[in-house]
Amino acid sequence: MNVDLNEINSRLTGPDAAAVKASLERWSLVAKPLKSLGALEDLVTRIAGITGEARFDIGKRALVVMCADNGVIAQGVTQTDESITALVAADLAKGCSSANLMARVARADVIPVDVGVKYPPDAPGLISRRIAAGTRDFTSGPAMTREQALRAIGVGIETARECREKGYRLIATGEMGIGNTTTSAAVAAVLLGCEPRGITGRGAGLSDEGLKRKIAAIEKGIAVNRPDADDALDVLAKLGGFDIAAMAGLFIGGALERLPVVIDGVISAVGALAARRLCPGCAFAMIPSHMSAEPAARRIFGELGLEPVIRAGMRLGEGTGALCLFPLLDMAMALYDGLVFSDIGMEAYTPQS
Amino acid sequence: MNVDLNEINSRLTGPDAAAVKASLERWSLVAKPLKSLGALEDLVTRIAGITGEARFDIGKRALVVMCADNGVIAQGVTQTDESITALVAADLAKGCSSANLMARVARADVIPVDVGVKYPPDAPGLISRRIAAGTRDFTSGPAMTREQALRAIGVGIETARECREKGYRLIATGEMGIGNTTTSAAVAAVLLGCEPRGITGRGAGLSDEGLKRKIAAIEKGIAVNRPDADDALDVLAKLGGFDIAAMAGLFIGGALERLPVVIDGVISAVGALAARRLCPGCAFAMIPSHMSAEPAARRIFGELGLEPVIRAGMRLGEGTGALCLFPLLDMAMALYDGLVFSDIGMEAYTPQS
Repeated sequence: MNVDLNEINSRLTGPDAAAVKASLERWSLVAKPLKSLGALEDLVTRIAGITGEARFDIGKRALVVMCADNGVIAQGVTQTDESITALVAADLAKGCSSANLMARVARADVIPVDVGVKYPPDAPGLISRRIAAGTRDFTSGPAMTREQALRAIGVGIETARECREKGYRLIATGEMGIGNTTTSAAVAAVLLGCEPRGITGRGAGLSDEGLKRKIAAIEKGIAVNRPDADDALDVLAKLGGFDIAAMAGLFIGGALERLPVVIDGVISAVGALAARRLCPGCAFAMIPSHMSAEPAARRIFGELGLEPVIRAGMRLGEGTGALCLFPLLDMAMALYDGLVFSDIGMEAYTPQS
Repeated sequence: MNVDLNEINSRLTGPDAAAVKASLERWSLVAKPLKSLGALEDLVTRIAGITGEARFDIGKRALVVMCADNGVIAQGVTQTDESITALVAADLAKGCSSANLMARVARADVIPVDVGVKYPPDAPGLISRRIAAGTRDFTSGPAMTREQALRAIGVGIETARECREKGYRLIATGEMGIGNTTTSAAVAAVLLGCEPRGITGRGAGLSDEGLKRKIAAIEKGIAVNRPDADDALDVLAKLGGFDIAAMAGLFIGGALERLPVVIDGVISAVGALAARRLCPGCAFAMIPSHMSAEPAARRIFGELGLEPVIRAGMRLGEGTGALCLFPLLDMAMALYDGLVFSDIGMEAYTPQS
């Protein structure tokens, strides 16, 4: 698809003020102390603003997992290699990866998308939207071309549209791609203007030596490519991955479709940050879920102005943290859709002097 | 029942080390990066230590809601009166209060217990274990006798035992009692040794004037009763409520029955703190869920050495926050009970140098 980010941004009109107002009114009638569900109450109202409807149904929802490989793993920044990306992408399609097991509890469908797995598995159910067989190693040049970055963003936008057409009313973002805590830390360092060492974590469990190599690779990638921090597309293309770009596209597409999109861990959060820089108008459609254990997460949520309600130090990826928000939303919706004061023969709590 | 806290404490032997070890071994085989579920992984292992079994089933679970009235509301520390305790206790029994709606999502049974509702409703399903028709106003003397406090603790211990006998393998604690953010702040202030004004919140939405009255009532209650901070039973009897004492009993009974007991908001947390002071050996059976918006919560979890994973600023009560943990545990259990590395033809992640 042809992606014109300026044109898209001009079409994004933000949350629906009438739906937000009606949602707040609904909450004031629900038979419980006002604001007593705290941030869960705010999230329901945020979703009302996104969807444009004060009353909505999030029963049909999906986790979209963007799968891709990253050339930078040639620098020894990971414990495993591209065979694991292929294996887990196939498992996601077969329904037996971590995200699938947790999605069953969260009553969500899992939609894995191949945006650039190096060794694509033969797995029906893995949606093929491949840009290339992985990115190039960013320590010796751009990870991808600007055009490839735009195409990956386009995959995300299209996927959000397809989800909306299929009746999904809430989507979570996930990723699978060995090396993507390196690419996401690199993109975050440039977009946030901070030193890589301050925001680079151990990913799936890197040793001290591995962590040093990871930081060195990011520093080299930045030195070699000199990305323009004010041009998020340049940063994504030079240091990012197809998964991050496609997730950025999901956030943009979600905003276009008025479809709430749940941020997962740090990689997804970097996608959200990139989306916001590319298309500031899309940020209203983002929903925070959990605060990843990776160091960049806190800074990104600060910039996004969002407060994840789950603080479990999770760093599994695949969208597993985003899925954890679904039942919490369901529980909030059970009250939102439930009894109002007049149903139980009680007056609303009113401020007392 | 005859409650001998010293005798009970001597019978509590703490977490089962073999089950903890076996649980950690199980996690090391599960097909995902080690520790990548963060605190959720730790909670599963904690439950293994509590139950004494590395593999366990938490499918059958209940929320126990202790309902009671508090004489201190005569001091104008609340927006509503005892009629609301009776109304909500009846709704909990009928299945139409907030906790019931959320419990349906969390697949938990709700067990409301009347430990001292002033105007007991005619509601089949409300278990009657009444100590008295509410406590006395603690600004003019002890809220209850020491013997009544012990009896209320006994109700909790018995209820935990009955839950275990009925096959419940996980229980959440909840409460309903107008005025119980006042009683719990009073108990917390004495047990934690801090000024009431530092830890007293607005409960269901008190005005500035109401908050001043609430703090004044707590200060007066402490001045009039001079509770002994080193004698938790004295503090509970003089300033507490039947609900708080009964929840303390649930934590103690949970430890006796090797039944994990989930802490809810600040009132439940005060019950947990009191239980720990009464019977230090019971603390191993406590499971944190969310961090309440009430100011005392943070200090109590600090003393308990527990970190709630949900930070949503909830303050609804009835055990609603504790219920929110259930689906998160279910999602963690889906992985814990799910595939191990060898199932998917992959080696475990090993530290890389």
